[in-house]
Formats: sequence, structure tokens, C-alpha cells
Amino acid sequence: MKIELERVAPMEIEARSFEIIGQELPHPIDEKLAPIIKRVIHTTADFDYADTLCFSEGVLEKALDAIRGGAAIVTDTTMAMSGINKKALAKHGGEAFCFIGDPDVAEAAKNSGTTRAVQAMEKAAKLDRPLIFAIGNAPTALIHIYEMISEGRLDPKLVIGVPVGFVNVVQSKEFIMTADVPYIVARGRKGGSNVAAAICNALLYMLGR
Amino acid sequence: MKIELERVAPMEIEARSFEIIGQELPHPIDEKLAPIIKRVIHTTADFDYADTLCFSEGVLEKALDAIRGGAAIVTDTTMAMSGINKKALAKHGGEAFCFIGDPDVAEAAKNSGTTRAVQAMEKAAKLDRPLIFAIGNAPTALIHIYEMISEGRLDPKLVIGVPVGFVNVVQSKEFIMTADVPYIVARGRKGGSNVAAAICNALLYMLGR
Repeated sequence: MKIELERVAPMEIEARSFEIIGQELPHPIDEKLAPIIKRVIHTTADFDYADTLCFSEGVLEKALDAIRGGAAIVTDTTMAMSGINKKALAKHGGEAFCFIGDPDVAEAAKNSGTTRAVQAMEKAAKLDRPLIFAIGNAPTALIHIYEMISEGRLDPKLVIGVPVGFVNVVQSKEFIMTADVPYIVARGRKGGSNVAAAICNALLYMLGR
Repeated sequence: MKIELERVAPMEIEARSFEIIGQELPHPIDEKLAPIIKRVIHTTADFDYADTLCFSEGVLEKALDAIRGGAAIVTDTTMAMSGINKKALAKHGGEAFCFIGDPDVAEAAKNSGTTRAVQAMEKAAKLDRPLIFAIGNAPTALIHIYEMISEGRLDPKLVIGVPVGFVNVVQSKEFIMTADVPYIVARGRKGGSNVAAAICNALLYMLGR
């Protein structure tokens, strides 16, 4: 068996990948949103996202404004936080947070009979700065964000709702799309911490690398 | 619009998810390997993995032996490392490492005109203990592992080869499957740091949670 490698310089692999993605897209996509859609496909090799990613009206401008304004990005997993380009975020005064492993969050979950994901969102809501939520794992986190918005206790600049899975994942995304909040959602079961991070990075890279 | 949530206690969501995955599998799968295949589908909501995951002969026993023997897991991204259950790994004396961000790795890449992924694998090869590689991102890392094995410089206990992407990803996986080494590979373009971590965790959980 002869396996042939494509000769592409390391620095050009990403550009070449985006070129291939552009050629293989199942249908034309919105040009302004293309960097986000393509980066998610780049991260997953899954063209389903060309159809499942949903964007609220004017979300791009609002998201970029939030980042420029030094918004904090709150994730529901350390994995998503780990995938976000913190250096690019810091350029705008932003920081990434994940409270899921905090002892006070575990304690609050135990005392209230809720989940750590819910309590991590409660803790995030107390941050006194513009907030972007990037939820790639826990539908309970996304549902709790929806509830806090509904109760008037939370006003995020952007909710990235891309949890993955089989139980209440689809529903959690439908909920957040009914809240009056800027959103980027991967409709259906698919998503993940990698997808959440990819969307954050796509936004950051739109403001320069 | 009425969105109905499924009533499942937080502790039962994973079991319920695995049940759904079992019901929706496109075809029967090997019972012994099912915990790995199902966990990858759980992590991605992508049933393609029921067809693309490839296992070398007897890999399961070899992988579990390696973990019981205190093998180190080396990843190519901090994201994959972040997703591995380090507590479960530590029970067996194992540790997870990711060298991609190390200053000496960056320096070596610069001096040698290679990539940080390649140099991170070189650094890992110097660890004096049983090694498991979990590659979810960089095909160059996987190709370099193949080369070090071919040169007789590396003898890993297991290679998890699941990089994702469009340039040399497919080829890197075909290469590693020709090396005489225990492997778990996601054939094709799909994979990811989340998939790499899910496979590690599936193995760890087979030894108890």
C-alpha cells in the first residue's frame, strides 16, 4: 500500500483546509457568517453544521462588539475553556472562565439538589462585566441560562448554545432560541466543547489574529 | 411553541443516553468494544463512528494492561488532556501530558524547521515509562509517531489516532494502521480532541469509576 501525503507547509494547512471546506459545502452559505460555519466544520470535519448552525438577527455585530468591549467568556467545561484562544481574547481585555470544578459550586449543587452545571452558571451570572456564554456540553447549563434570562436576572451579550447529546439537548437549544438574546446555536443533537471553542475562536479571529 | 423536557435525574442522564445510542446504532457492534464506540458517539452525537472506528487485534486487553501498569497518556492538545479523567487515570498511577505549549518544544521546532506537534512527540518519546498516545488534532504528530516507531525509537503501548481535518488526516491514520502497534483509529476525516479524550475515558471507566 502506498500512502501519499499532500505537500502543504505547516503554516498553510489551515488555509488549504478552509479552501477544501469551501469547495465541498453542500450549498452556499451567508458570506458574513462563513468564517464561523467553516471553522466549526474545520473542527469537526462534519458538514452537517452548514445546515444546523442558527444565528439570531444581527448576532455577529453584537458578538464582536461584546468582545471588543472586554466581555468574559464563560464555558461549562474546562475542555471548552482550554480550546479558546485566550491570548486573542486578552487583546480585547477579555478572559475565559469555567466554574464547573470549583468547590463552592459543588457545595451549592449539593445543598440545592441541582447540578454543578446549574450552579456554575449562577456563579457566572454574578460576574460584574459583559458576558458571553459558550455551552458545549451541559443542556442543564443552557436551560438555566434561559431561566435566568426569563427571570430578568441575566442579560448576556451572546449565548453560544452547542451542547451535544441525547437527553434534553435538542430542547435546551430550542429554549434558548426563544429567549430574547443574541445566540449562535447548533440545532439538533450535535455540538460539543470543541464546537463551542471553535465558534469563540472564529469570532476572535474576525478581529485579527 | 411548547418544548417538553424529558424527566431524567442528573445521575441517570448518561445511562439514558447510552440506552438511546444502543437503540439507534445503525448495526450491531462488537460487545467488548461497545463501551468505546458508544462513548465516542455520546461525545459527538455522530453515529458515523460506529463505522469508522478501527481497532487493532487484541487492542483492548493491551490498552487496559497499559493503564493498569501506570502508563502515561500523551496528547497533542491541551484540550484533549483537559477532557481526560485524570483522577481515574491517577488511580492506576498514570498521568496525562501535553507538551505542545512548552517553550523548549517551540524552540526545537524553530531550530529544526519542523512543527511543535512533531517536537512535542519527540519530547514525549523521552519519557521513561509505558506510553499511550492520544492524538486528536495534529496529523503531523501521528505521522511522526509512525516514523519514530518505524525507526525503532518508540514502542508505545497504544496509539489513539483520531486527528480531525482535511489535509493529510486520512493518510496519517492509514500510516499508523500499518505500524506494528496497538491502535484505535477513527478512519477518515473525522475525529477530534473530544474523541481522543472520550476513548481514553472509555478505557479508564472499563477499569471502574
